[in-house]
This record gives sequence, C-alpha cells and structure tokens, in this order.
Amino acid sequence: MALKTLSGKAAAALDKELMSTGAFSIDQLMELAGLSVSQAVYRVHPLSKGPRILVAVGPGNNGGDGLVAARHLRHYGYQPTIYYPKRSKNDLYQRLAKQLEDLEVPFVDDFPAALGSTDHVVDAIFGFSFSGEVREPFPAVIRALEETEVPVTSVDAPSSWNIEDGPPPSGAIGSAFNPGVLVSLTAPKPLVRHFKGRHFVGGRFVTPAIAKKYDLDLPEYEGIDQVVEVGPSGQKL
Amino acid sequence: MALKTLSGKAAAALDKELMSTGAFSIDQLMELAGLSVSQAVYRVHPLSKGPRILVAVGPGNNGGDGLVAARHLRHYGYQPTIYYPKRSKNDLYQRLAKQLEDLEVPFVDDFPAALGSTDHVVDAIFGFSFSGEVREPFPAVIRALEETEVPVTSVDAPSSWNIEDGPPPSGAIGSAFNPGVLVSLTAPKPLVRHFKGRHFVGGRFVTPAIAKKYDLDLPEYEGIDQVVEVGPSGQKL
Repeated sequence: MALKTLSGKAAAALDKELMSTGAFSIDQLMELAGLSVSQAVYRVHPLSKGPRILVAVGPGNNGGDGLVAARHLRHYGYQPTIYYPKRSKNDLYQRLAKQLEDLEVPFVDDFPAALGSTDHVVDAIFGFSFSGEVREPFPAVIRALEETEVPVTSVDAPSSWNIEDGPPPSGAIGSAFNPGVLVSLTAPKPLVRHFKGRHFVGGRFVTPAIAKKYDLDLPEYEGIDQVVEVGPSGQKL
Repeated sequence: MALKTLSGKAAAALDKELMSTGAFSIDQLMELAGLSVSQAVYRVHPLSKGPRILVAVGPGNNGGDGLVAARHLRHYGYQPTIYYPKRSKNDLYQRLAKQLEDLEVPFVDDFPAALGSTDHVVDAIFGFSFSGEVREPFPAVIRALEETEVPVTSVDAPSSWNIEDGPPPSGAIGSAFNPGVLVSLTAPKPLVRHFKGRHFVGGRFVTPAIAKKYDLDLPEYEGIDQVVEVGPSGQKL
C-alpha cells in the first residue's frame, strides 16, 4: 500500500484552511507545533544526554516553530541557544524571540562555534514551503550540519531537502545531510520516503474531517502526548 | 511560613504584563492554560473512569480556558459536552467554539440534564476576576454543582468563591460547593487556604524574573508536564 503523505502544496492549503474556516490563529498552531517538537526532543534526547540544545532558526514559519520549541525546552530544564541570522520583522516571530530573551536564552551569530559546544541541534531552518536554492547565510550552516557528529532533529523537513523528492543531488548543498530525527508536523511529507532515522508526527489539532479531506492516515497519539513515533517513512509502528 | 499566593489584583497585573512587555498573545497563553487543565483532568479522571466530560463555560477568560481544555480532551479520546449559555462576541472565544464544533463536540442548553449523563465536570465559569454576585443563569448551575455527586474539576477558582476569602457565607450560592479538584493557573490564589481537594498548578510559561517580581514560590514541574500536583493549599508535595 502506498504511503499517504502531504505534498508541500497540500500542506500549505491545509494550513490555510485551519486558519480560515478552521478558526485557528497562527499563534495557536505554532504554539502546538513547537510544543510537539519540544516533546520529540525530550524523548530522543533526555536531559541526561546533556542540556545544551542549539536551535537553528530560519526566516519563516519553520523558524517560528523552532523558537516555540526552544522556549518549552528551556522550561523543561534544557539550556537552549538560538542561531537566528535572518530575523523577521513579522510581529509574531519578534514576540517569540522576546519570550526567549526574557528567559535569558542566548542568541549567537557564530554557528560553527555554537555547534562545537552543544549536545543536540534542532534544525528549524526550512519547512514545507522550501524550494529552490539554499540562500545565504544558510549554505555554510547546512554544510556544518552535514559534517557534524552532534545529533540533529529536523522540524518538518531536513533543511535543504526537496519536499517532494528528498535529498539534493550528489554534491549539492545538503546532499550529505542526514539528520537522525525528524518531526513531521501535521503529517509526513513525500520526502520521508528517503529518510532513515527516528521519525515522529506532531501537531495534534487535525480534525477527522480535515484528515479525511486531505486523505491523511494519521497515527494514533497516546494519552496526552503531542507526538507519536512512526517508522522512518511514516509507517505505523 | 505563610503560603505565597497571588491575589486577584496581582493575577490581573501579571497577565497584563505577560501580554505587554512579556510579548505573549492571549491565544498563546489561553492555549497553554487550557492544555494544563486538560492534563490535570487526564490525571485525576483517566479515560477508564468514563469518557463523558461536561465543561461549564463562563463568559470570560476562565471560559476560554475551558473551551481549549475541551478541545484537547476530545483529542485525547474523551467525549466532551459544552454548556456555554452566555456566548461572548469576542473573536477569540468564537474561534475556540468553532474549533470544537468542527470536532463535532455538542453544545447543550440544559445543564441539569447534561449533569445527569456525564462522568466528570470541568467548572470553567468564573476565574480570578470574579467578584460580587453570581449572575444569571449561573446561580442554578452552581446549586446543581453543590448537590451533584459527579466529580468536579474547577479552573483557577471554585466558581462563586471569593478569590481572596474563599467560600461564600453559609446559605449563599456556592457556600456548599466543594469541587474535588482545582487547577490553579500561574499560581494559587488566596482562596486555596480553604480548599481541601486535589490541587494542581498549571501554566508553564512564567519566567524566573516574573516569579521573582510577583514573589511567587512556584513548584517544580516534572519532565514535559504542563501541570504539577501540590497540596490542597498549594504546599509543595
């Protein structure tokens, strides 16, 4: 049976529907998405593995999810550090950054240096709306993530991967980027066919009607969990 | 040592600060507050005790927390029913109600009838800004809650209790209302000195700086929990 995934285009339409007829605000959805990411990180990287988490934040919604996740991780007792080189003027992202500053979470400019003194990386650079080229200053960041031995959790997509087709062609930026953990928000995207690591689905706000309309076959969450672990390509475990 | 609590006035100031200099939106805070309530209900009333949860929703923020909690409970597998007699025209509350309607959560008008066919009640009628008289149509609702044997979880305050002084004088509406469970949001209010049931603190978004400024002595949350159980009057367990 073919795996059901959500294309980048369908994911954008689903998000738009949740925020129009679905009556959700982006603040709500981002809070729940970031909470899911924080719970996945807690599961794969408990505090006993080291408290330092470097969160690489991109300029769009994927970055916003990372900022929310960082705040929750701070409340869980981790020591997050934020790399956020292209700060958005969007009001929500500015507020999410302020919430971290009020928790005395440091923002750093030197990604390679930060990578050298962390226990885990959250890749919240690009999400389902990514396509085309990796823009500055992120090529060097992706290169560093390709080479590092620090474990990486990617949010929704390994940054630089094509949402439909997966890793870039051999030699291109990101072709050797293989994060150990992926958190698919709402539903897995087609790229998961090429993913080999631990895989979680998060974003526990999809109604049965939306799941039916978008032909999603979502795994069952347990108890109060905001994430559920699935197979690398999204198979139910 | 005197127990540290947050007066109604201080709670209002703290909320205002979170939403101004703290940069939180009310959508975010209400999502996290309602999530806390849902986790407390899951803990005191697991699904095995019966899936039917009647949520009594008041006209203000306390009611909004209840609407959010109901949505999460629905996702956990419960069957919530909403009693929401004074619907607000506020955009956020309207959206929270729509989110429940999209999950096919029923809204009912007859509280006593609904009380007769539920396994648990969430009292989200009045919160820390309540004072004075219980207004229509809530006197009959509070009377029904005084008499029922169905277990009740109150959000932030047993509705009708004075935030500073606790239960109303003997014979007044609510004087015999003693919910078995209370979820104090952000921090316990002074009324907890009169509370005898199971008590949780929720709302895991307070920064150390805010806790210091408002002289709060918050209990430590465990792991990824959004609630922490404390003694009836807020003592650490």
